[in-house]
This record gives sequence, C-alpha cells and structure tokens, in this order.
Amino acid sequence: MADKVKNILEQLDKGKIDIFTALAQISDAKGIENIGFARIDHERKSRCGFPEFIYGASKTIEQLLAIIPILIKKQSPVLVTRLEAAKGKALKKKFPQGEFDELARVFVIRQKSEVQGKVIILTAGTSDLDVALEAKYTLEICDVGVNMISDVGVAGLHRLLGEVENFKKADAIIVIAGMEGALPSVVGGLVSCPVIAVPTSVGYGAALGGIAALLGMLNSCASGVTVVNIDNGFGAACAATRIIKNQ
Amino acid sequence: MADKVKNILEQLDKGKIDIFTALAQISDAKGIENIGFARIDHERKSRCGFPEFIYGASKTIEQLLAIIPILIKKQSPVLVTRLEAAKGKALKKKFPQGEFDELARVFVIRQKSEVQGKVIILTAGTSDLDVALEAKYTLEICDVGVNMISDVGVAGLHRLLGEVENFKKADAIIVIAGMEGALPSVVGGLVSCPVIAVPTSVGYGAALGGIAALLGMLNSCASGVTVVNIDNGFGAACAATRIIKNQ
Amino acid sequence: MADKVKNILEQLDKGKIDIFTALAQISDAKGIENIGFARIDHERKSRCGFPEFIYGASKTIEQLLAIIPILIKKQSPVLVTRLEAAKGKALKKKFPQGEFDELARVFVIRQKSEVQGKVIILTAGTSDLDVALEAKYTLEICDVGVNMISDVGVAGLHRLLGEVENFKKADAIIVIAGMEGALPSVVGGLVSCPVIAVPTSVGYGAALGGIAALLGMLNSCASGVTVVNIDNGFGAACAATRIIKNQ
Amino acid sequence: MADKVKNILEQLDKGKIDIFTALAQISDAKGIENIGFARIDHERKSRCGFPEFIYGASKTIEQLLAIIPILIKKQSPVLVTRLEAAKGKALKKKFPQGEFDELARVFVIRQKSEVQGKVIILTAGTSDLDVALEAKYTLEICDVGVNMISDVGVAGLHRLLGEVENFKKADAIIVIAGMEGALPSVVGGLVSCPVIAVPTSVGYGAALGGIAALLGMLNSCASGVTVVNIDNGFGAACAATRIIKNQ
Amino acid sequence: MADKVKNILEQLDKGKIDIFTALAQISDAKGIENIGFARIDHERKSRCGFPEFIYGASKTIEQLLAIIPILIKKQSPVLVTRLEAAKGKALKKKFPQGEFDELARVFVIRQKSEVQGKVIILTAGTSDLDVALEAKYTLEICDVGVNMISDVGVAGLHRLLGEVENFKKADAIIVIAGMEGALPSVVGGLVSCPVIAVPTSVGYGAALGGIAALLGMLNSCASGVTVVNIDNGFGAACAATRIIKNQ
Amino acid sequence: MADKVKNILEQLDKGKIDIFTALAQISDAKGIENIGFARIDHERKSRCGFPEFIYGASKTIEQLLAIIPILIKKQSPVLVTRLEAAKGKALKKKFPQGEFDELARVFVIRQKSEVQGKVIILTAGTSDLDVALEAKYTLEICDVGVNMISDVGVAGLHRLLGEVENFKKADAIIVIAGMEGALPSVVGGLVSCPVIAVPTSVGYGAALGGIAALLGMLNSCASGVTVVNIDNGFGAACAATRIIKNQ
Amino acid sequence: MADKVKNILEQLDKGKIDIFTALAQISDAKGIENIGFARIDHERKSRCGFPEFIYGASKTIEQLLAIIPILIKKQSPVLVTRLEAAKGKALKKKFPQGEFDELARVFVIRQKSEVQGKVIILTAGTSDLDVALEAKYTLEICDVGVNMISDVGVAGLHRLLGEVENFKKADAIIVIAGMEGALPSVVGGLVSCPVIAVPTSVGYGAALGGIAALLGMLNSCASGVTVVNIDNGFGAACAATRIIKNQ
Amino acid sequence: MADKVKNILEQLDKGKIDIFTALAQISDAKGIENIGFARIDHERKSRCGFPEFIYGASKTIEQLLAIIPILIKKQSPVLVTRLEAAKGKALKKKFPQGEFDELARVFVIRQKSEVQGKVIILTAGTSDLDVALEAKYTLEICDVGVNMISDVGVAGLHRLLGEVENFKKADAIIVIAGMEGALPSVVGGLVSCPVIAVPTSVGYGAALGGIAALLGMLNSCASGVTVVNIDNGFGAACAATRIIKNQ
Repeated sequence: MADKVKNILEQLDKGKIDIFTALAQISDAKGIENIGFARIDHERKSRCGFPEFIYGASKTIEQLLAIIPILIKKQSPVLVTRLEAAKGKALKKKFPQGEFDELARVFVIRQKSEVQGKVIILTAGTSDLDVALEAKYTLEICDVGVNMISDVGVAGLHRLLGEVENFKKADAIIVIAGMEGALPSVVGGLVSCPVIAVPTSVGYGAALGGIAALLGMLNSCASGVTVVNIDNGFGAACAATRIIKNQ
Repeated sequence: MADKVKNILEQLDKGKIDIFTALAQISDAKGIENIGFARIDHERKSRCGFPEFIYGASKTIEQLLAIIPILIKKQSPVLVTRLEAAKGKALKKKFPQGEFDELARVFVIRQKSEVQGKVIILTAGTSDLDVALEAKYTLEICDVGVNMISDVGVAGLHRLLGEVENFKKADAIIVIAGMEGALPSVVGGLVSCPVIAVPTSVGYGAALGGIAALLGMLNSCASGVTVVNIDNGFGAACAATRIIKNQ
Repeated sequence: MADKVKNILEQLDKGKIDIFTALAQISDAKGIENIGFARIDHERKSRCGFPEFIYGASKTIEQLLAIIPILIKKQSPVLVTRLEAAKGKALKKKFPQGEFDELARVFVIRQKSEVQGKVIILTAGTSDLDVALEAKYTLEICDVGVNMISDVGVAGLHRLLGEVENFKKADAIIVIAGMEGALPSVVGGLVSCPVIAVPTSVGYGAALGGIAALLGMLNSCASGVTVVNIDNGFGAACAATRIIKNQ
Repeated sequence: MADKVKNILEQLDKGKIDIFTALAQISDAKGIENIGFARIDHERKSRCGFPEFIYGASKTIEQLLAIIPILIKKQSPVLVTRLEAAKGKALKKKFPQGEFDELARVFVIRQKSEVQGKVIILTAGTSDLDVALEAKYTLEICDVGVNMISDVGVAGLHRLLGEVENFKKADAIIVIAGMEGALPSVVGGLVSCPVIAVPTSVGYGAALGGIAALLGMLNSCASGVTVVNIDNGFGAACAATRIIKNQ
Repeated sequence: MADKVKNILEQLDKGKIDIFTALAQISDAKGIENIGFARIDHERKSRCGFPEFIYGASKTIEQLLAIIPILIKKQSPVLVTRLEAAKGKALKKKFPQGEFDELARVFVIRQKSEVQGKVIILTAGTSDLDVALEAKYTLEICDVGVNMISDVGVAGLHRLLGEVENFKKADAIIVIAGMEGALPSVVGGLVSCPVIAVPTSVGYGAALGGIAALLGMLNSCASGVTVVNIDNGFGAACAATRIIKNQ
Repeated sequence: MADKVKNILEQLDKGKIDIFTALAQISDAKGIENIGFARIDHERKSRCGFPEFIYGASKTIEQLLAIIPILIKKQSPVLVTRLEAAKGKALKKKFPQGEFDELARVFVIRQKSEVQGKVIILTAGTSDLDVALEAKYTLEICDVGVNMISDVGVAGLHRLLGEVENFKKADAIIVIAGMEGALPSVVGGLVSCPVIAVPTSVGYGAALGGIAALLGMLNSCASGVTVVNIDNGFGAACAATRIIKNQ
Repeated sequence: MADKVKNILEQLDKGKIDIFTALAQISDAKGIENIGFARIDHERKSRCGFPEFIYGASKTIEQLLAIIPILIKKQSPVLVTRLEAAKGKALKKKFPQGEFDELARVFVIRQKSEVQGKVIILTAGTSDLDVALEAKYTLEICDVGVNMISDVGVAGLHRLLGEVENFKKADAIIVIAGMEGALPSVVGGLVSCPVIAVPTSVGYGAALGGIAALLGMLNSCASGVTVVNIDNGFGAACAATRIIKNQ
Repeated sequence: MADKVKNILEQLDKGKIDIFTALAQISDAKGIENIGFARIDHERKSRCGFPEFIYGASKTIEQLLAIIPILIKKQSPVLVTRLEAAKGKALKKKFPQGEFDELARVFVIRQKSEVQGKVIILTAGTSDLDVALEAKYTLEICDVGVNMISDVGVAGLHRLLGEVENFKKADAIIVIAGMEGALPSVVGGLVSCPVIAVPTSVGYGAALGGIAALLGMLNSCASGVTVVNIDNGFGAACAATRIIKNQ
C-alpha cells in the first residue's frame, strides 16, 4: 500500500489533487467498496467495534443479493434488519446457511466467534417481543452474551423484583417497554450497570406510536438511563456492544 | 317557589315562552346570582357535591372582593385557587378569618363541618408539593379527610413499599408526579381503590411542561387509573370528593 | 405457605439473599404463574379488585390458546380485548361457552357471580358504540351493573336533558365522546357522582385521531371530571369498578 | 384621473412599462399611500367593508404617531389593537379625542356613523373578557350593534339556557371560550344564525395556550360553526361585520 | 299537545319528576325520535336552519336503512356524507330516487324547494374537488344557490384575478385549498362578503395532512376570514346556509 | 394582441370594468387555457423559467389524458410526478414516446433542447433514491445538467470526503437525507455553491415521517443552506433550475 | 507550508499517524485558530464564499472582545448577530469604527470591498423589519447589493403588483413573512429568479411562534421556493450570497 | 441489625404487619432517612454506583440547608444541580469548603477519592458550555476522569478531525450539541467506544427548544449512539459513570 500512498502524495504535492481527494483515495484503498447504489464499509468493525450491517427496510431483493455475497467473501457475519417476510424467505432460500426470524424481521448468517460479556434484555410485556428479538440477534452477531427476561412490567412489581438478583451479573441491561415506558426508571433505581432504554410503539391513542414511552424514558427520574429510538432494538444492542467491546 | 314555577309553566303551556326560557326562569329562581361580570351558582353543591369555587388566575382583586362576601353571606366555604401572592395577601388582610398559602397559591375561608372518608395524596418528589397542597386544601374545604406522603418516586422503590400498608385504608389515592409520571402505574398495580393521577410540570427539556408525565399516565399499564390536567391538584381533589360523597 | 415464608426470611436474615429476592420468592409462591412468554398474575383480583385481563392486540392465537385454559382452570372469568375478528372467531370455536363481539373486539367467558352497583355509559354519537361496548363487557365481567344511553351529544341538548333524572341513581357515569369531547363537561355540571371521560378517535382532520377530544376533556370546566386514554373503554370500566368495589 | 390612466396606458402600449406596472400605477392613484415603512390602503373599506386597522403589537410609538394622523385626515375611524399600556397612554395623550382600554389593549378614535345589525358576544367565563372587549370595540368602529353576555359556560347550563330567547334576535353570535371550548357546540345546536367561535388562551397545562379550545371548536358537532385564531376577538368581529354589511 | 304538557306539569308539581325530566318529556313530544341506536332531531331545521343530516362514516348499512325512511316520511331531504362506495351504491339501489356521487362520498334525496342566495365555491387546485363537491351537495340540499370555480391557486394569480368581478355578486365565498392554504388570504383582501376557508389534506410531508393549510388559514392576514375543520366541505356549506337563511 | 389590450384598457378607463378584470382579460389572452377542471398556464415558462408540470397524485387517468395532449401540442415537455404505477403504465401505453420510472413515480415526455449548468444530487443512503430520481428527471426536463452520487452519509465520512473535489464544479448541490438529516450541514461547511437540502421520510419512530430530518436541516449550523418539503425532490430541482436559468 | 504538509504525509505514510490526524494537522496549519473556548476558521471564506461570522446570542462580552480583534487583524469584516442591546452598545464603545443596529440586533465592522449582484428583500408587514434588517446587514458584509421593499402582504395585492417590474432585475429575492406566510407563493408564481422564503415569528395563537408560516412556505404551491429557519434573515442572506458568488 | 430483622419477621409471622411493611421496615433500617419533605437514600451508591444527588431547581434554600449537612455527616460528596445564582451564593457562604459555578448552575463539596477511567466531553459550539460543565462536575464528583474539547461542530470538519486521535483513549464520549445535533452521528462513525449524545436547547425557531437536536440524535445513522434529555449534562455523566464503574 505504501507505494499507492506515495503516489497519491506526489500528486497532491504537485497540486493535481487536493487534500480531501488525497485522503479519500488513501481511505478508499483501505476499505470502502463502491458498488454503485451502495458503498460498503469494510473497516467499520475496526473503527466502531461492529461490522457494517444492512438496513433492510428500503432495499430491493436485488440490492440485498448484491451486497450479501460481498460480506460473505470478506468472512463478515451478515445481519439484515427490518426485513419483510417475502424478502426474508427469498434470502433464506438463496443462503440456506442463514436464519430468518419473521417476528424479529431479521436475517442472519453467523460466523464462528467467541462470546464476550453478558447483556440482559428485559421486556415490560409480551408485545415488546419483536423489538427484543431484534436486539438479541444483533448482540449474537456482535459476539455478545445475551439473556432475555419477558413480561415484567411495573403494574406487577412482584414479577420484576424476583429478577433483581440476576441483574447484578449484567454488563448492561436493555429495557424494552411501550405504553408509559416506566420500566427503565424502576430498573435504573435498582442496579449500577448501564441501562439502555428502548421505547416501543406498543399502545394506542395517546401512546402516539411510541412517543409517550420515549418521552417517559428521556425524563426518567433514575439517573444515567440512556435512550434510543422507538422500536430500535438494533441500536440498543449496538450501544451495549460498544460498552462491552471497549472495556 | 311553587307558585312561581307554576306560573312559568302556564306561560310555557300557552306558548308565550319557550321551553329553554321556562327552564332558565325556574333555575334563576333557584340559585344563580348574576353580578354582571360573573354568575354565582349557589345550587352547585346540591347538584355536584361541592360548592362553587373561584379560579383566581384571571380575576382582579376588585372582582374577588365582590364575589367572596356573597359566598360568606350564604355560609358557603371559600376556596380561591391559582392566586398570586399579592392578591392572596390582600384577601388575607380583608378577611382575617381566612388563610393564604403562598406555595399552594390558595386562599380559604373554612366553615364548620364534619370530615368524611380518607384520601391519600402521594408525591413522587418534593417539587410536586405545590400541586399536592392545592389538592389538600380543596379536599379540606370539601370536608374530606386527607393524608399526605411525600417523595416516594419509583427510582427508590424502598421508599414506596413501606407505605403500601397505609394505602389499604384509603377511599382514593391521588398520585402526583412530574418527569416520566411512572408512580401511578406502580401504585395502581398495588391497590384496589380508585387511583387519580396528576401529572405535574416538574422537569425540563423533553418533559414538555408536563406533557411527558400526562402521556405516561394516560398510557398506564395499570388498569383503571384515571388522569386530570397537568398541575391540576384542585381537579383531582374534586374527583376524589365525587367518589366519597356519592358513596 | 407459612413455613416457606419463614424459611425465605431466615435466609434473608443470614444475608444469603437480598430483600428483593426475598420478596420475589414469597410472591412467586403467592400467585405468579410463569409460562415463558408471559407471567400470569392470579393474585391481581385480591390486590386490584379485578382479575388479570388479556390485551389481545399483540397476542398470537397460540399465545391466547395457552393463556385462556389457565384462567379457566382457576375459575377466573376471561376477558380478551382488542381482538381481531379472525382470532375472535377462532376462540369462539375453541371455547364455545364464550362470546365474541366483533364490534366491541371483545371475547369473554363469564363466571357466575353477583352484580354490584350501577354504572351508566353515555355516548355522544352512534360512532362511539364500539368503545362503549368494550366498557360494557368489562363491567359485566367485573360483576358491575351497567346501563347504556346512546346518541345524546351536546349539539342537541334536549336529548341529554331527558336523561338527567336517570343519572341520579348512578354510582359512576362513563361519558364517551369523540370530535370536540364536550359531553363530559355538560354532564359533570349536572351530577354529583364520579364522571369518567373517554375520548374517542371519532372525527377527522383536526380531530387528530382523538387528541382534540382528549385535550377537551382534560381541560373540562366541570370540576372533578377524570380522563382515560383515547378509545379506552376498558380502562374506564376498570376505574368504575375500583370505585364500586372499594365502597 | 382619466388623464393619468390614459398616460399610463400609452406607456404600456409603447412597451415602456409592463401590465403589472400599469395596473399598480393605476391602483396607486386609487388609494395606496406609501409612507416608507408602511403602505396605507385607503380603499380597503370599499373593497372589504371595513377600513384599514392597525395591528399595534409590533409598531413603535413613532410609527403609530405617523400613521394615525393620515387616517384622521381621511376621516377614517382609528382602531389600534394589541397595544401595550405605555403606548396606549401615549396615544391617549396625543389624541385626547380617542379612548384607550387597557384590558382590551385597544385604542380607538370614533367617527360619527349609523349603527347597523346586532351581534351578540358570549363568553364562557370572566377570564375571556379581554378578548370579548377587543371584539366589541372592533364592531363598534365598524358601526355594528353589539350586546355582551358573560360567564355562561357549559358547566352551568342553567346560566346559558336563560339567554336563549335573546339569541333569536341576533344577526350573528360570537362565542368566546377557553379551556375545552365547548360553548360554541351547545350554542350552535340552539340557534340558526351564524356562530363564530373564538378560542382563548385561558387555561393551563394541556390547554396548550388555547390549542385545546381551538381543536375543540374546529371539531364541533354542531354543524356550521366557524372558527378564528386563538384570542382573535378582532377577527371574529370583522367576520361578523362582513356578514352584516353584505346583507 | 296542551294536555300532555299539563299532565307533565302536574307530575312536576307533585314532585314525581324533576324539572329536567319535565323539560325532556315536553321536548320529546316536540321532535326527538328515539330509534335505539340514534335519536333523530326533527326540529333541527326550525332551530338551526337546516334539517338533521347523516354522518355516514361510522354508520352500518343497516343503521342507514333504518334512519332514511324516517326522514323521507317526514318529507325531509336526505343528505348522507362520508359514505363509502359500497354503502353508497346499496343506498342508490334501495332508494332509486336518490343520487350517489362517489368522488364527493355523498348520497342525497332531494325535496322540491326554492333556491335562495348565491354562494361561490373556489378551489385552489383540482385535487380539492372532492371537498368542493361535498360543499356543493350540502348547499343544494339546504336550498342555497351555488357556483363553482376551480383551479385558481395563488401561484398563478392571473387565473384568480379574472374571476374577481364574479365575486361581487356572492352572499358568501367558500375557499377550499390544501398545501399552504394561501388562497383565502388573497380572496379576503379582494372582497367584502363573508369568506369561509376550508383547509384540505392535499399535500405531503410537512403538509401534515392538512394542518399546514389549517394553520395558514387561521393566521390569515386578511381580516374576518373564518375557518372550518380540514376537508370539511359540509361544515362550510352549513355555515354559508346560516348566513343566507338568517338574513 | 395589441388591439385587444387597448380595447380592454379603454373599457377600464371608462369604468366599465375594474382593474382586476382588465388584468384577467389581458392575461387570459396571454396563455391561460381553461379546460374546466383545470387551467393550464402556458406562460409559466416565460414567467418562472420552467414550464407547467403536472402533480399526478390526485389526478384521474381521464384528467391526465385530457391535459397531456394540450402540452404536447404546444411542444412543451411533459413531467407528471407522484404517479401511481397503474396510471404510469397507462400513460406509457397511450404515449409510447414517453418514459415511466416506477421508483421515481415520474412520467416524462422529453423535448429536444440544450443542457445548461451542472447540479450534483447527493444521497445519504440508498433509501433516498426515489426522491433523488424525482429531482433528476425534473432537472433533465428543465434542461439542466445532473450528476448523482449515492450513499455518502455522515456515519462514514471517508465516503463523502472522496467526492469533495467534484463538488467544486457544481452550480448547485441538492443534498437528500432522511433520519437525522445531517449531511447538508457537513456539505454546507465544505463548499461555496448553493446547497438545497431535501429531507426524506426514511426512518421510523422518532423520525416522525421526515420531520426529524426537516428540523435538522432548518437548524443547520452551516450557513446558507436552504430547505424544501419532505421528499420534495421535484421542488429542489425547480429551485436549482431557478439558480441556473437566472444566471 | 509545503514542507510541513510533506512532513505530515510522510508520517502518515510510515503509519505514525492516521489519516484523520494527517488531515487535521494540515488544516490546522491552514487556518483554524484555537483560542480555547472557540476555534476561529479563517479559511471559511475560501471554502464557503463568506467569512466566519459570530452568533452573538450565547457569547459573553468577554468572549466577543477576545474574538473580534483576531478578525480585525486578519482584515476580515466583522458581523455579530442576535446581540442584546447592552452587549451591542459595549462593542460600539470598544470599536467605534463599527455600527450597532438595535432593531436588527447586529453589530458590524465593514471592510472596503466591491459590491456584486442584486438581492431584493421583501417583507409582508412592518413587523418583519428586524428579520429583514438582519438579512440586509449580512448581505452588505458579504459585498452583495441589496434593495428592501416593505409591507406588501397578500391581503392587499395592489401593493405587491406595483413592484413586480423591479423583481425582474434581481439575482435572488428574499421573501420575509409571518402569520400564514403566503407571500413567497405569490412571488414565486411571478418571477423566474431564486426565491428564498423566511418565515417570521410574527403572529399569535395558532401562529405557533412562526411554525404556521414555516409550514406554509415548505408547502408552497409555487415550485422551487426554498426555506430557511424561522426569523433567520442571516441564513437567507448567506444562501443568496452563495447564489451570487458562485455564478 | 439481626435482632431488628428477627423482630420484624416475628410481627410478620403473627400477621401484625404484611410483607411490604416487613420489607420496608428492614430497608428503612438500611439507609432511607425520612426528613419529612424528603427521604434521603444513603444506599444509592451501593445500588447505583453514585451517591444521592440534589436536583436544586425546585428546592428552597431552607430545604437545601437541611439536606446538605446530612450528606456531609455521612461523608458523602455533595452535588446540587440547576441552582439559581442567589441560592448558589448562599450555599457557598454557609459551606465555604464547597464550590459554586454560576454558568454550570452547580454547587459541589468534594470528598477525597481516586479518579477512575476517562471520559471525553465534546461540544459543537461555545453555547453548549453550560451543559458541558454540568457533566464535568458530575463526573468529578463521581471520581471519573474528564477531558473537555470545545467548538468542534460539523460545519467545520477540520476542527473535529484533528481530535480523532484523542478519542481512541476514551472509555466513553459525551457529545453535546444544539441546533441540528449532527455531531454524535459523525463521532459515532469514527470511534468504537460508547457515545452518549446530549441535545441542547441552543438555537431558535424550528430548533423548538432542543427538540430538533433531540430528534436528530435519536435518529442518528451511526449505530449504537444513545441519548439523554435536552440539556441533561448531569444524566449523561451518570450514564458514563455507570459504564466506567461497572467495568
């Protein structure tokens, strides 16, 4: 690579290219693969601690079929989120080594690796399960240990308190709740580890598609609770991964 | 009064007045006192269970000095809410038998009466005290028994659980909380009596002046929690009075 | 059970478990049934005055078929709300002793019991009927007496005034209205019993899916009106049940 | 004026000016007076039925002192709205023939004229008085007959029903209410004349500075109620004037 | 009827019924027809200037088939708004003397009558046509003269200005516009008759389903423009009818 | 035409018509073609720099088939935006010389012409492609040179910096981004040409259908970035055309 | 500087620093001056076409007194926006060669330079003057020619049409309006040059502090109108400067 | 303590108290100090990793003077946030060993301790300094190492990129930005450590008091960025402390 860099620097020196172009040419050599409609960032794992993942919501099946083999070739694990059932099934057919979970709307192809750390995923109700599963798959693909505990909302404190002992072993807790989103406040007052709150769109009327839970979590009276976007199980898992991989 | 009513109804029968006018003339005879800028409703207690109260926020001191003696003459208790300090002190001077509480922004003149029932007022934090006091004075003026328990927010569950025993004796619990407004959900899951939630404007940023707490309470996962307007300690107390006086 | 509790408390005393674990172990022994995806709270009736109900909106038919027999076995009545027609019909087939009301989106299996109290359900228009029916079924399952009065909105006061006499016998009135949500203010000014307002999503444009009615009810000029979430007939019925069962 | 028009048309014909300029020059000759920071529209009365009024909120006292004499010279009445007390008093000093009403925030100089029609202004509470007065002064300056009825909100129907007889003589009713803004719905169901609803910013918390009342009025279940901006007594009066002057 | 009234009054006199019941019984005799799920208000025309209309959005075909013959029997015209195509066609089949307009979502059965007054309906774009047609049918059923002028939005002023001459003959102008909703401001500055603005949900993104147009119209810089709910062609027509019938 | 104009102005001079009618009659003569449901503005190109385009969202296929031939006859290019697939395919069948792009929802019929200037269209992600294509077709129909660069969002700065050299040759840059909409701020800090930001509805939850990106762009810390409506690729292209054609 | 750059790139080549550090070290050498609490960007003019300006709203007088001399030394013009009167007067005292305009909240120190291009600033009302002046000072400091035309709102079209002739000579028009913000739509339909719309916070109630005008402008039916933040005269001027300087 | 617990358990056994009371009495013995208006939680540090802090916004000086000595006696550090200048100065006078920072609105009394970890605080502009300082004091009181880097917003990427090298040594980065809040997205794409985003209320108009920045950060295209409430430097610091203390 040294030669390529030298060459670029010479052109810069002669004024043929400017400093941004020089920078771009060097970094292009170091991991961005431009396939026209997308630019795949192979260095993301070394920069951010997790590889490039695929937001499936707006990709055509053709685009997905173009991107996935590139990741496989680089021996990167594959995670496609927000995937409609039809596309998920098509991917499963094409890549039988992968798994498609319709409830989680996630398609994954795993790579062998060692698990690190332990994250607990809590849900307030069974309706939050899809968001919890998105977080679970993401953590697994990031090689992070996961444990799920369901249906422990604050209207039945008994159910929650029985799990407090388990919380002490966690590196981070992802707390998933819709409606009024009160669970992270209660959990945040019981533990010292990082608490990542995920509001869900579960509820109706004044739940405003998750805005009520989001506002509740942002205003948590338990100090040091952080929040991600509504239904963003993926983002919460990435945040937990940052915590564990950076230790 | 019977004669007057008969007379009015005869006119109605003859088509000289219409049905609304008939009703109005009768009810006028039965308790509305028109003093120009306001119409005082002396029959409200018999209709709604509590007397006519005065919303002080937008009244001039002259208007207040005109209305209060009319209530006193009828031996009705006086409750003025949302009263600025200057006006409150002026009333205290004019009516030394009254009390002005600057934090509660309330001026009251009590009437002898018997206390009935028991309402518990819970606050999540000390910042909710002004709203709690507005509720307390209103209940007292309505002859309802009150008990206040402060600073038992959900981020420190220990503080709340120690009070659960007390909750069992309540006819109703008024739960006052700002920020994420989670306290009514936890309380609603622990008791069988009516729970009236009051969101407060305590908080900043995404608390949106109490909207976050309001939405949280409306979406409570504890069934059967009802809600009043932001900072509306007065309204919660009236709702509790309706419950107790109607039993 | 006493022995088990003693045993747990001894362990607590010796520092082998913490206080939350102690509480959890005791309560687990007292009525939470963990079936993996859900934790059924058999003690809720003794705590909150009504049994555990099922929010059907996000449950799969498999989950419903797993939960319902557990409730039947405990001789608890069954109430599933927000149930799509297909699922409702499937439940009716499986449990022919039950009833499915498509408009109310409710499936119930009743238990013999004695009716207590009297709640009046008022609707402003015929479009509010589904919400009213959800409230009606919930009250019936809670063994509370119900009476429905429809289409008495404020634009035709005559229709409402003819019913005022009936209101006097109510333990509570549930007032259901969409659009501007004015009906609870008028009713609240006419009666002394508790008034629970339910905004509905009836309307279009600036009705904002029920937000207009919700705001209207929260700002009611009639004192002591309380409010539940938009279209939440179920919640209003639970609130009324708390009032009646706690008397 | 004919000569001026001919001259303009010649220039247009010769291509020296374009059609917009031709139009503008002709209309300039017919009533726009450009005083630099403002352009006074003397023909507005003939076009819109009421003269040019002055929105005082953002005008400096210097600007007001420049505009008012121009109107006086044309024998136009003067109406300045949204005027701070200091500026209002300064105007009163300068133009002693005028009147300044501090509550209404209005300064007027009247011209002799004949009153036409009859508008009733209703307010739900005494707190709506400032908005009602703004409407009243505007109607008077437009030479429209006015009648004010105060404090007849829907929580005390008796107070309102006694006035229904009066409503039948009105050419239009302006209904002013804050909080839930329910009064126009009730009035709209009782009368056949035009009903103009004015939401006010009276209230707190979920009243959202008048948004709750505004939404309520826009969703009125009484057909044919129209609405103006929050606290816009002036606009309601202009709308009523359009109705009366156009008959 | 006199006998019935006398009888009611006697019962009132003896304390067997209260005043509201008396009132209700008398008015019931005077025009409310209770058919269980609905109460039909036959006296609305004499009170409000237009007969009872049917909001079709939430009515079942069975309900519609129950209500319409009652209106026909009373020789009242029939107007059903917000009607889905399937229901509209079913009504047309059952009542072949009626008309169903799918774009307007309106079903009407006309009664012979005399047309009065003249209302102009203006639309900013062709996309506002459905709302305009709803207004047009409503005016026709109310026996008001109508004239429609389409596609004269403010981005092409030439198109509008050519119609100004026509505006002068109108008793009222209904101005229908989506997007930024600017047309009523321009029209309001050109005419002296009442201007009723109807915001439509035409637009996307920041149009917020008509909120942008609604806010624009409420803040119109042209004085005396009034506004109805988004897409509420029906309401605008009723408001115009109030103006014309009350003259 | 001169004679017609003179004639109109003479009538104006004589007071037979007013100034608006004069203007309207002149402009009618100059390019508005009224086909009943629409008024086609043939002079728009001379006034605004681009011809009249067709907003397809709310037009029926019949309306489109009526308008397009009129444009073809005038040798104007045709651009129909927001076109559903079914309508687009129908147009393609009827006008085989046109092109229909289903992703862009655009139908075009081109006219020979010379390309002018250079606009760069940047997208943050591949999901913004539909909006980018709408902009591209619009620019092409306006005879403006276009260059598209995709998937250069701010979470991978390397990808963007490599393109900075290209930006220097642009007359304007259209920056299209959803989610947090940060790309225009970064680009605006790197270039001196006009930057037009287009927020897209890409995202979920707190993205609020593009409102988050819209607010982000309006608050850009890079000075002189301007913004158009959410998903409005068409509007951004028109704005760029104004810049280039006006130079 | 060449040597320094070479040196840095050699270090990069040898892997001693990474690419971002290389870029940072080079750019630091090229114009960022770090004074602790702020980093002054002397190269902004060469990158973005206008020098670094100072947002005064949140700066202390001490911070301003530290930054301004640095700019003066570099012979850069000085523009401080959003400056409170007290701070503005303090700056004027310290730098008597500068100008402070209290209405515009702007402090400037000019540098000799040549004026280029012509921008017209239009305001709908006199209340928009402060925003217009902020734009005017910014344009002057950017060496762009300016022309202001005031009080030509759409409710009085005559006033606007007389200015159309002038618009044809503009390189760009900045249109400033509060309330419904309709002026840019009308102007956009009359001219072919770039139109930059600035919503202002002028208005009350449903004007929502400028949100109504902002939404109106974003939904303009005139194609190719772009928008900046509420009251952002500065941003509009920078956008116009980008257009003119890039030609 | 054993005796006390035994005693409590005996009472429980005898049915004199219930399980919640038992629990509460035991925990009361373990660290809640009830001083009437507040309940101080001495065990919070062992539960949550940081001691009980004081939200100063709504406390009276009397309340503060009652709470602080209790903390001092327990040798806990003291941190009072959101403190008005007057109260801060009064505390400084009473507790001269403390420090009051007026810009940060923070009063602290430090305890000797060892620093652990390293957090970088980044601000987009100098206006975000107050929020950054609140975070800094909180981290210091939590014994966490801190480093502040100011004024590196995305409109001048050069300034930011020069700091990337430093980011690699951080345990967590707190990124503070107002306006469009884009900085966390750019930083999140450059580093692998946890990134906690703090939106600030810096900006005006469509910044909506920090809502624009908040939404931007919640929708960050950089994966794994978490967010706290607007202006909540305190909360971000607590979240960082959770990460570092739990490692």
